[in-house]
Amino acid sequence: MKDIIIELFAQGKYSQIKNEIGKMNVVDIAQLFAELEEDAIMIVFRLLPKEMAADVFTYLSFEQQQYVIESITDKETKNIIDDLFLDDAVDLLEEMPANVVKKILKNTTEEKRKLINQFLKYPDNSAGSIMTIEYVDLDKEMTVKASLEHIKKTGVDKETIDICYITDKARRLEGIVPIRKLILNDENVIIDDIMDKNFLSIKTDDDQEEIAYLFKKYDLVAMPVVDKENRLVGIITIDDVVDIIEQENTEDFQKMAALEPSEEEYLKTSVFSLAKHRILWLLVLMFSATFTGNIIQGYEDILETVLILTTFIPMLMDTAGNSGSQSATLVIRGLALGQIERKDALKVVWKEFRVSIIVGFALAFLNFFRIYFFVEGADFLISLVVCLTLFLTVVLAKLVGGILPIIAKTLKLDPAIMAAPLITTIVDALALIAYFQLAAYFLGLV
Amino acid sequence: MKDIIIELFAQGKYSQIKNEIGKMNVVDIAQLFAELEEDAIMIVFRLLPKEMAADVFTYLSFEQQQYVIESITDKETKNIIDDLFLDDAVDLLEEMPANVVKKILKNTTEEKRKLINQFLKYPDNSAGSIMTIEYVDLDKEMTVKASLEHIKKTGVDKETIDICYITDKARRLEGIVPIRKLILNDENVIIDDIMDKNFLSIKTDDDQEEIAYLFKKYDLVAMPVVDKENRLVGIITIDDVVDIIEQENTEDFQKMAALEPSEEEYLKTSVFSLAKHRILWLLVLMFSATFTGNIIQGYEDILETVLILTTFIPMLMDTAGNSGSQSATLVIRGLALGQIERKDALKVVWKEFRVSIIVGFALAFLNFFRIYFFVEGADFLISLVVCLTLFLTVVLAKLVGGILPIIAKTLKLDPAIMAAPLITTIVDALALIAYFQLAAYFLGLV
Repeated sequence: MKDIIIELFAQGKYSQIKNEIGKMNVVDIAQLFAELEEDAIMIVFRLLPKEMAADVFTYLSFEQQQYVIESITDKETKNIIDDLFLDDAVDLLEEMPANVVKKILKNTTEEKRKLINQFLKYPDNSAGSIMTIEYVDLDKEMTVKASLEHIKKTGVDKETIDICYITDKARRLEGIVPIRKLILNDENVIIDDIMDKNFLSIKTDDDQEEIAYLFKKYDLVAMPVVDKENRLVGIITIDDVVDIIEQENTEDFQKMAALEPSEEEYLKTSVFSLAKHRILWLLVLMFSATFTGNIIQGYEDILETVLILTTFIPMLMDTAGNSGSQSATLVIRGLALGQIERKDALKVVWKEFRVSIIVGFALAFLNFFRIYFFVEGADFLISLVVCLTLFLTVVLAKLVGGILPIIAKTLKLDPAIMAAPLITTIVDALALIAYFQLAAYFLGLV
Repeated sequence: MKDIIIELFAQGKYSQIKNEIGKMNVVDIAQLFAELEEDAIMIVFRLLPKEMAADVFTYLSFEQQQYVIESITDKETKNIIDDLFLDDAVDLLEEMPANVVKKILKNTTEEKRKLINQFLKYPDNSAGSIMTIEYVDLDKEMTVKASLEHIKKTGVDKETIDICYITDKARRLEGIVPIRKLILNDENVIIDDIMDKNFLSIKTDDDQEEIAYLFKKYDLVAMPVVDKENRLVGIITIDDVVDIIEQENTEDFQKMAALEPSEEEYLKTSVFSLAKHRILWLLVLMFSATFTGNIIQGYEDILETVLILTTFIPMLMDTAGNSGSQSATLVIRGLALGQIERKDALKVVWKEFRVSIIVGFALAFLNFFRIYFFVEGADFLISLVVCLTLFLTVVLAKLVGGILPIIAKTLKLDPAIMAAPLITTIVDALALIAYFQLAAYFLGLV
């Protein structure tokens, strides 16, 4: 479809484009725009059916949104801004340069401008910054029939009418009623009798992580947002929550790989910004690896006497790191999904201890034979020292990996920060100390 | 609330429980059950309002579901099974032991039994295994008024009526219409005139990853599932997709931490099963780390001559691993979210190359001064060798980390498998070879 439009454009068949494009999904049209040349963008944009223009506009990249606003007339700007949902308008204003912001605000109604200003004050990632104000509100005295008529009259602009909200004179939220209940009930039934008074709501300054958690736990599709006086100020819908979930996951992936989290898409991020998000943690970890180096240096005489011990250092360090991050990942993920809580700390330790005994024994057992029979210069005692270290390392790594994320959570730190890289550094050091102590003891090198 | 019920139960105030529990959310009631003693479960379960019993039942753990089914009468079983949505009934049957399955099937209607059997044939994680068959279907000749009456008559059992589906005589899907459109349009409008004929649909054997991708891309709340003849067989709703998204993310987290993926919750997984999911990759990585060890062994004479070089091995290996997994994580995540595609391979390489030059230079520069001025026994040449290696290592690690996931994708392997642990092993080896070669050259040790 995309290719057909591009083909039609090359042939100058604009009226045909006008016909075809109306049948496309707005998301696909926005993707089409990403492939158009600058001069083509405005021509095709003006061919869009009027009711689709604002919808397509919200799916464009910020660069293209800027280009469109800069190119259109004041009247066209007004039309688009009028059709934008408030949360999309706010997102737009936050990203545009001053001249574009000016043009947008000039073509916004006084009322909408006030609302936008209010929205801009909510903290990043709070319920207030995510919510939309386009919802249906009803009065509890209304009948089903009156409610449906009210929705018919006012509902066209609402982002979701699947759930309606019932407020009192002071705009305090009293109940919710899904639209299906309106349809399934008799015309004369009073809303008060069918509305759900046991609803969940969130406050404007609640964090998006908490919101996502509630949506998942209770299988919600929408949730009302109230202010401190319990007045309804907006709603959050599931499609925004899906984006939040992916964003929170991306953040965890990044933290667990020693990256400072960033919301930007990889291909759209500048080289400088990518580098900036990586350097800090690499420096921290590089300097902490110095301690591991110091441990090796501290046992130089042992290495000098039995140089073959050096050969096994990478294997011990890698296994330590991998064992630790396996445990850490499971616990971090469990914490993120609410399946593990702080009170489970002892259960986790006990579980990791038993798992590590099995895993450690299996690895050490297999490795012993490999080293004893196949590594030149490794006698029984050296094989024993390496494998005892391996066993001990796996046990320590799994205990540290299992407990550190929970400790982080208790200290109100993000458990993901405690993941792989930091745990690797710690268990590397533990592994080496165990290694040299065991070597000194068994090989009589003290 | 939970504590109040437990308190009331201890006091034997059952009628009060009956009052209070009806006001609770079914998810919270299920959590309450998780804290009840076995003998209390059945008493409280029977106090539930009839219309809530099946709902609460679906949120119980499999152990508790089994206990409930084993404890109730045939008639009670029939009531619950009748009220269960088909997809929940199928999930239940898949987890129950033979005797419970028998009891359930005995109390299921002939018609539902047939449907269940059909569902059990769909492959795991396919659209067919996730979909529900409770949807509203309409005829395109119907008026809005007739449609609303039809929904009123049949809609009570439907999992979602927010979107209605229009099929022809052969049950082929012709269009969709959101319920809001029915409400916003005039009573006499014909469905054919307002239904959306450009809808997205999926096939029964499409994979859940693809489904989640489409929901996210097009901001959907429900999607029709059709068979090979384009006949409507079910729908998938956003609440199931949210679970799929989290499951796919969990899988990626696990793969990236060298775990064989598992869907079970950590605290509910046996020690043996946890160990099993960890051992394989640890073994593979342990034995591949042997190669790293062999590299060290191959350069033993160099180490013997300048033993201080050993000190820097952990730092070089750790930085290599961390640099590589930073890049790999960003690319793997970009691939998973559809923000990076195979055709972007060269863009990624070029980006990683430039980033690695900046990062590598910064790390090497800072480290040079630390080593030269603060590490005893490290002269100018040794500091230079270490820092040149560090620079080269960062560049190599970032290139390998950036490109390996894309190669995996091209080979139809899961990019996440290529992540941190495997990349660490590869870049460790590269780092050590670079180290010893540079040392041999600059320190004249060939």
